[in-house]
Amino acid sequence: MGRASKYDILFEPIKIGPKTMKNRFYQAPHSTSFGNDFPGTIANYRRTRAEGGWAVINTGFCSIHPEFDPAPFICEKIWDDRDIRNLSLMTSQVHEHDALAGCELYYGGPMGSNFDSRLVARGVNQIPSESAWFHSCWEMDKDDIRELQGFYVAAAKRARSAGFDIINIAGGEVDSIPLYFLMPFHNRRKDEYGGSLENRARFWLETIEQVKEAVGNDCSITVRFGIDQLDKRGWGGVRADEEGVGFIELADHLVDLWDLMVGGYYAHGGGFAPWGTDTASSRFFEENWQSEWTRKVRSATTKPVVNVGWLTNPDTMVSMINSNQCDIIGAARASIADPFLPTKIEEGRLDEIRECIGCNICISRTLFGTRLICTQNATVGEEYRRGWHPEKFSPAKNNKKDVLIVGAGPAGLECARVLGERGMNRIHLVDSHTELGGAMQWIRRLPRLGHWGRLIDYRQQKITKLKNIEFIPKTTMTADDVKEYGAEIVIVATGSHWAGNGINGPTHNIIKGADHTLPHCLTPEQIMLEDKPLPGEHVLIYDTDSYFMGPALAEKLAIEGKQVTIVTPFSAIGAYTYNTEEGAEVAHQLEDLGVSMVLGQLVSEIGDGVVRGERFDRTGYPIEWETDAVVLVTQRNSNIELFKQLKAMEKELNEEEVEAVFRIGSCVVPGLIADSIFSGHRLAREIDTSDPSSAKPYIREHRILGMSDSDYDSWLDSYHK
Amino acid sequence: MGRASKYDILFEPIKIGPKTMKNRFYQAPHSTSFGNDFPGTIANYRRTRAEGGWAVINTGFCSIHPEFDPAPFICEKIWDDRDIRNLSLMTSQVHEHDALAGCELYYGGPMGSNFDSRLVARGVNQIPSESAWFHSCWEMDKDDIRELQGFYVAAAKRARSAGFDIINIAGGEVDSIPLYFLMPFHNRRKDEYGGSLENRARFWLETIEQVKEAVGNDCSITVRFGIDQLDKRGWGGVRADEEGVGFIELADHLVDLWDLMVGGYYAHGGGFAPWGTDTASSRFFEENWQSEWTRKVRSATTKPVVNVGWLTNPDTMVSMINSNQCDIIGAARASIADPFLPTKIEEGRLDEIRECIGCNICISRTLFGTRLICTQNATVGEEYRRGWHPEKFSPAKNNKKDVLIVGAGPAGLECARVLGERGMNRIHLVDSHTELGGAMQWIRRLPRLGHWGRLIDYRQQKITKLKNIEFIPKTTMTADDVKEYGAEIVIVATGSHWAGNGINGPTHNIIKGADHTLPHCLTPEQIMLEDKPLPGEHVLIYDTDSYFMGPALAEKLAIEGKQVTIVTPFSAIGAYTYNTEEGAEVAHQLEDLGVSMVLGQLVSEIGDGVVRGERFDRTGYPIEWETDAVVLVTQRNSNIELFKQLKAMEKELNEEEVEAVFRIGSCVVPGLIADSIFSGHRLAREIDTSDPSSAKPYIREHRILGMSDSDYDSWLDSYHK
Repeated sequence: MGRASKYDILFEPIKIGPKTMKNRFYQAPHSTSFGNDFPGTIANYRRTRAEGGWAVINTGFCSIHPEFDPAPFICEKIWDDRDIRNLSLMTSQVHEHDALAGCELYYGGPMGSNFDSRLVARGVNQIPSESAWFHSCWEMDKDDIRELQGFYVAAAKRARSAGFDIINIAGGEVDSIPLYFLMPFHNRRKDEYGGSLENRARFWLETIEQVKEAVGNDCSITVRFGIDQLDKRGWGGVRADEEGVGFIELADHLVDLWDLMVGGYYAHGGGFAPWGTDTASSRFFEENWQSEWTRKVRSATTKPVVNVGWLTNPDTMVSMINSNQCDIIGAARASIADPFLPTKIEEGRLDEIRECIGCNICISRTLFGTRLICTQNATVGEEYRRGWHPEKFSPAKNNKKDVLIVGAGPAGLECARVLGERGMNRIHLVDSHTELGGAMQWIRRLPRLGHWGRLIDYRQQKITKLKNIEFIPKTTMTADDVKEYGAEIVIVATGSHWAGNGINGPTHNIIKGADHTLPHCLTPEQIMLEDKPLPGEHVLIYDTDSYFMGPALAEKLAIEGKQVTIVTPFSAIGAYTYNTEEGAEVAHQLEDLGVSMVLGQLVSEIGDGVVRGERFDRTGYPIEWETDAVVLVTQRNSNIELFKQLKAMEKELNEEEVEAVFRIGSCVVPGLIADSIFSGHRLAREIDTSDPSSAKPYIREHRILGMSDSDYDSWLDSYHK
Repeated sequence: MGRASKYDILFEPIKIGPKTMKNRFYQAPHSTSFGNDFPGTIANYRRTRAEGGWAVINTGFCSIHPEFDPAPFICEKIWDDRDIRNLSLMTSQVHEHDALAGCELYYGGPMGSNFDSRLVARGVNQIPSESAWFHSCWEMDKDDIRELQGFYVAAAKRARSAGFDIINIAGGEVDSIPLYFLMPFHNRRKDEYGGSLENRARFWLETIEQVKEAVGNDCSITVRFGIDQLDKRGWGGVRADEEGVGFIELADHLVDLWDLMVGGYYAHGGGFAPWGTDTASSRFFEENWQSEWTRKVRSATTKPVVNVGWLTNPDTMVSMINSNQCDIIGAARASIADPFLPTKIEEGRLDEIRECIGCNICISRTLFGTRLICTQNATVGEEYRRGWHPEKFSPAKNNKKDVLIVGAGPAGLECARVLGERGMNRIHLVDSHTELGGAMQWIRRLPRLGHWGRLIDYRQQKITKLKNIEFIPKTTMTADDVKEYGAEIVIVATGSHWAGNGINGPTHNIIKGADHTLPHCLTPEQIMLEDKPLPGEHVLIYDTDSYFMGPALAEKLAIEGKQVTIVTPFSAIGAYTYNTEEGAEVAHQLEDLGVSMVLGQLVSEIGDGVVRGERFDRTGYPIEWETDAVVLVTQRNSNIELFKQLKAMEKELNEEEVEAVFRIGSCVVPGLIADSIFSGHRLAREIDTSDPSSAKPYIREHRILGMSDSDYDSWLDSYHK
């Protein structure tokens, strides 16, 4: 089945300077925490996206010189010949799939820690950086500026040597010196590089010009430009109708393609000036939300323009192009979740698109300086080290076996899907509920979390297509049922439940008076699944989980007219949402709804009509809150009874030819949804190893004494043999 | 000159199980963020300490299995053969210097993020971890316990294969499963592994026994044990006279050496239960502060005992042994600052000891997941990648030259010292003040910062001994003076000064009304160097620096009887001191002194008798404080005039045979003292390269395609050629 003709426009080639994109899909530069320090990992991660049909594959931010070293964050680096060597692997793999490779040249000045290189950074002015490093920079004089521009030129030449087709002289949403010069906030210079827009643009213009002069005949010159920083409070951020339009007009003759983005002056450690983020979460932003700003600058350029903005729907993409909003569809998160998005559109397989759910778990990990992950796509970053391809699956060696999976939540679903792809004989996916999804069925009904349901929808269509998978709803299984079911392999995926007694991480204790069998104590499931009524008007949510559940329930109950108080021992409501760049929005939204937020307090006792607490540091200061009901969002406990029972009857099971019992997902450890998906995926990928319950080692891509390149590459094969 | 006989006892051999320590110096396990992922770096870092005379050299915490992966923190790992390979380099280098190598086996359970391995951890109970990861674990059943103990045994065997002499089954100050079992806070089990002390000790005892059974004939079995967690508030921490004594009595027959420590249940991200730290900073703890607790358990064991506690003074060490407090002197920080501490004591070179100043900058970096550094010792972690030895210096190729260094602060001092060691012809170190040290001369006079003066004292004695260095005090130099001075190489090290106009990182603006020429506005130097009087009783310190200066001045002024208010836009006073594990103490101490602490506020205007501010998030809410004086601790500005003038007269300088002008330290960028020391050291080490102003590349010890071991090792040589 081919695609509908309305999508043809997405597959038109676009000329950008000396190069031509084969279609209009552009994987925007984004962080991975792989960098070229892990050459096999980054090359295979990027290659997979090229294979999936993206016409341009970019690096993430690529430091041009050891003066900018973002440790503990991991970026690409193009400091010397060693980097050319490692990055060449990426470009050659990208080229194999007829895609162009782009290199995002980056010098962040004082926003880098330089904790690895131990050098000091130059800056626009000598002002301490707004980071957790508490350090500063030196103010460049004109010689220093020339030298830095020379770093850009040298890096561009090295990038060309490494095989890059596109050189991106970036000033994106976060910190880089070209953007710093442009921003009134950062630029307090009195010379010809400060003051007027022309002056503030000078550094960047000269740099583009010099790079173009050096490599512009061989490479396309692009600029990633954060055209508006959503600076509502007048700090001195870039605005689309001022610096946005102005800089594009000044630089348009030098640039082959504009890679635009909006928002997001987000400083990592210090919590400074949170002006929003370009990686807007699906809880607070809609697809193509950046168009309000990007449309303002469209007429300032005659060159092809890339837009981004959580784009997963091909109809949206077509309308963006047809309405002249932009020429090219940029994506980071959509390409993480589904590397084959362009191919699936091209081939008319729209139902198979694994759409990004917009949860920003990806970002949360890179903000810790650790590897990119994805809730939807467990293969991210595993293409090389575990040998997982997002769309290809080897037949299981034991695929004559039947598999029973108990529980159709994220882990069970993903495990079934992958086992289905691997050709297991029969897979029965059994769940006590009517529908697939486990806890996701009610989580998707929480305010703002509807898009998270995509992770069920994607798997539901897959499971429907895979003829070896059967979903058996409304069936609760005992251990004896399992024993007699007739499957050789049993996988327990029974999930977890919210504690009803208040047990929690901060104190490791249950809470006196916490008892969800009482009318005034409720768990999230009682609210969402059982419609247990909340007595009275006032409700107190005690949240020691501190991710989305507490705030989402607070929002729901406030919308329903309750007077809501949310109490946490931590220093923020939904603390983990600050890692997903949602924290500020969560707080504003609850404030708007009149939710009272109490930080740094432990709940120590729940009485009738009153809740007692104390300061988390246990320095005393008792406190009381009057309330009619309490919602306990303290911790989840694994549903392990079935697994325990099965484990205890190993002999009997063997007699019934049940060969193995495994467990996956939150019935092992209640974690992120992404962790449950990974858990199910991992077991299915390794169902035919000698011990599927233990994860196989992966290629650890650090320096190992005595290892040659082929030792690295073949290590996984030899281990799995 | 030999040592005094009273120190002989420090050099007696001690038998520990099947091995013998050659003396009583024990490099305690400590983090480096090198790990064996950087085999050359960790091996050479550890080798240098062995060379310096320590009888035992340990790894840092060494993960026994990918189920415990602390990313972004970097630890040693002994997961498989690849780790044996990398760690063998460390042990062989340690053995070359007749030291024993110890491996600290570690399984941290849910305190690991597992962000790299993506596995899930087992725990004592299923309770979410007190970390920033917001995740949990699974509660082990007995099979899981046996399996985990099997991981310990397998890891111990791998450690033996890697050449380790000592296997340390650790439960130190931070989180590891053996200690979790012992702690009432973590252990809520109802089976024979929970409840009574005997039950809570069972896991650890069994583990030690199994490891001893497996490798105890070949290796010494030691236990790192946090005997008291300073749990003042009854959370359920380990106490010396309960679990401390009790566990030692139970395990003593299995253990060849006790590696004891005190305090320090410090959770990284979540700010949970800050019960103090074993790495006590010199601002709040004295040398050998742990003896109060370690003495309580001394009689519970018949085996040799290691104590730690910021030990740098050999007289203290001798008295600890003579008083039967312990048998062996353990040190982490003292060995970081001076790898050759034992050798210097042994050879009677006590004045040459480079004593740790106790600033905990080392820890601050590992808490970011980045490389260990040291204020006193710029060579830490550079032994391999930059080829720097802490005590050996190659003669400079251009050592016929004379050098003029302007400014005897940390950078100038260190540069002079290293150039002196490298045999430059004459080095003149000129300063406008009477004494060496620059800003350190008055910083050491701030409350609690006296020990920081050691960094001057060490360098002062070196400079006195090095005959090619002359200190010229009370001399202010103009550019013309420099030109005519007669030195071929000029190094500007003129430092920085605190801004008098309120310019600051958070807003990038000066502050209206801030003017240190007015009587009511003061800078730190005006208080400390100029004795400028503070009018009135009330003083407001505005601190956007947020390290030690603001709190130290607050303490000083409060002690002198002022009513002090300290205001910061950040969420903590002295925010960086939370990275040095001083933050909680800083806050308590200011609270005790009645200092009013205001967080999250910007100062926007300084008037006469009043200071106006607003919320840092600029959502309004103006605020006013009445005050008689304001101290501006906003940012430091580099003293760059001399360098600028010299740069502008390059031609004239050349005519006078001044060949080069360099700048170092905070006259380039005001940063940590450690950064200034590094800056001076780096220039001196590279004074004879083709461009000393730019740092030479170092060996980047990640995987580089096509590189062999000898390519790595020789890369530095070839580059510097």
